[in-house]
Amino acid sequence: MIADRLYESVGNKGNVCVGLDTDIEYIPEEIIKKYTSVEDMIFEFNRRIIDATEEFAACFKVQIAYYEAYGIDGLRAYSKTMKYLRYRGHIAIADIKRGDIAKTAEMYARAHFEGDFESDIITLNPYMGVDTIEPYLNYVKNKDKGLFILLRTSNRGAEDIEDIISCENKRIYNHIGEKIDTLSKRYMGKYGYSSIGLVAGCTDIREGQEIREKYKSSFLLIPGYGAQGGAGKEASVYLKDGNGGIVNSSRGILLAYKKHENGEKKFEIYAGEEAKRMKEDIEIAAKL
Amino acid sequence: MIADRLYESVGNKGNVCVGLDTDIEYIPEEIIKKYTSVEDMIFEFNRRIIDATEEFAACFKVQIAYYEAYGIDGLRAYSKTMKYLRYRGHIAIADIKRGDIAKTAEMYARAHFEGDFESDIITLNPYMGVDTIEPYLNYVKNKDKGLFILLRTSNRGAEDIEDIISCENKRIYNHIGEKIDTLSKRYMGKYGYSSIGLVAGCTDIREGQEIREKYKSSFLLIPGYGAQGGAGKEASVYLKDGNGGIVNSSRGILLAYKKHENGEKKFEIYAGEEAKRMKEDIEIAAKL
Repeated sequence: MIADRLYESVGNKGNVCVGLDTDIEYIPEEIIKKYTSVEDMIFEFNRRIIDATEEFAACFKVQIAYYEAYGIDGLRAYSKTMKYLRYRGHIAIADIKRGDIAKTAEMYARAHFEGDFESDIITLNPYMGVDTIEPYLNYVKNKDKGLFILLRTSNRGAEDIEDIISCENKRIYNHIGEKIDTLSKRYMGKYGYSSIGLVAGCTDIREGQEIREKYKSSFLLIPGYGAQGGAGKEASVYLKDGNGGIVNSSRGILLAYKKHENGEKKFEIYAGEEAKRMKEDIEIAAKL
Repeated sequence: MIADRLYESVGNKGNVCVGLDTDIEYIPEEIIKKYTSVEDMIFEFNRRIIDATEEFAACFKVQIAYYEAYGIDGLRAYSKTMKYLRYRGHIAIADIKRGDIAKTAEMYARAHFEGDFESDIITLNPYMGVDTIEPYLNYVKNKDKGLFILLRTSNRGAEDIEDIISCENKRIYNHIGEKIDTLSKRYMGKYGYSSIGLVAGCTDIREGQEIREKYKSSFLLIPGYGAQGGAGKEASVYLKDGNGGIVNSSRGILLAYKKHENGEKKFEIYAGEEAKRMKEDIEIAAKL
């Protein structure tokens, strides 16, 4: 089960999820000059980042929007990146945040759990309800695939739906969270975690602690480290004995080279150093 | 403004939105045998459906999941379909239901309002809040683009979030709907409709009437006609003097040929007939 693979990977390598949100603008000129196609530029950059950070990365998350933005060529780079990650034995998370029903959701499942874009875990948006999750469950059960479903996000807009308090005196994200929790318990791995996890990022530490406490068997995908402002202390709130959560950083790692003079010549080395620093930052905070 | 183009198109051609949710399984054998690539098969089918239904179609909606499911090849067919629709002067809606924040949303905007996948209007998912909408507004203002944002959907799962009643005694979809309504009034066309519309499908007629009454300046995209069970009477509830709404049918039109013996030889003719029948069905109901 993917839940077990992820648990073991976190145990071995720490909590860092390297986010491959690769914009062309992030890629050093040396690579840009070497190739004529966007596909090759993006893939070469990603491959070198992957190789340089894998020692400190529990998994990799690829944000598909950055690739869709470059059309067919961008999606070819996305496909190559996914294939390379899986070929190297890494856990590849497709950050697609799809949300749709019935046959449309079946088609998304096929798109991202098979074929050109095959990944190990995808992110989903639950706005339309639990029936938007069901078409993916066959893959979770029979194909070792996993899901991370949006629960509470750390952006300002979280107050517009997620944080609203219902007439039952419960926040909306907990309404949907409880239903997902019930569902996720049908797909438990041997370490006490389900292959259906949640995306959780809070600005408030107490709320983070409540989420960790309430969704005991859910892996948490925590965005917002680094470029988005969080740090090890905040992230560690979502962990349980150092496991049960992965903390994503994208620009913080991809653009680490920009903090160094002439850094772009050794961009992957700085990315690796930043992944290592982040891993240790979270580990230290988790032990406090 | 796209709101005005859509209003005029509905005035001229009626309320039908032809849904190009094209699965390979829907394509007659004659076309399958003629080509070797999925790209060519899907595009040829779509092109013939477009040509045969355009007289009765206010617009076309392309559900990207069906194309993503076939990987790069499928997305090439998606790109060609979008280009053909726009070349022929039709309004092309990309049913992508994306929902993300900040730079990720900017990348989705670029992906679907420029380049290979350029469309006129996209659908969005508001779970993460109003700040997920903002990155698209520049295109609405300066590039004649439009949005349809998920409000109330007709699936069973609507009860899991959308329909929950808040501590202010208001349904969640109205919480987000009111915020979108305020925003949408900044992008009004000359006929009293905004370029930011809503996706609304109810199983309850009274609730449909309330949505129509409450969101006066919003175009409504109404799914669920035909294969999903709705009919002209239900759909007409969302219209105002016959305009202000488009009613989507996908399988009902694409697979109309299956109701006829040897229908696949003239699949596009049956699709055209079904679009015409549907247009008249809604018109008659709207006048009652």
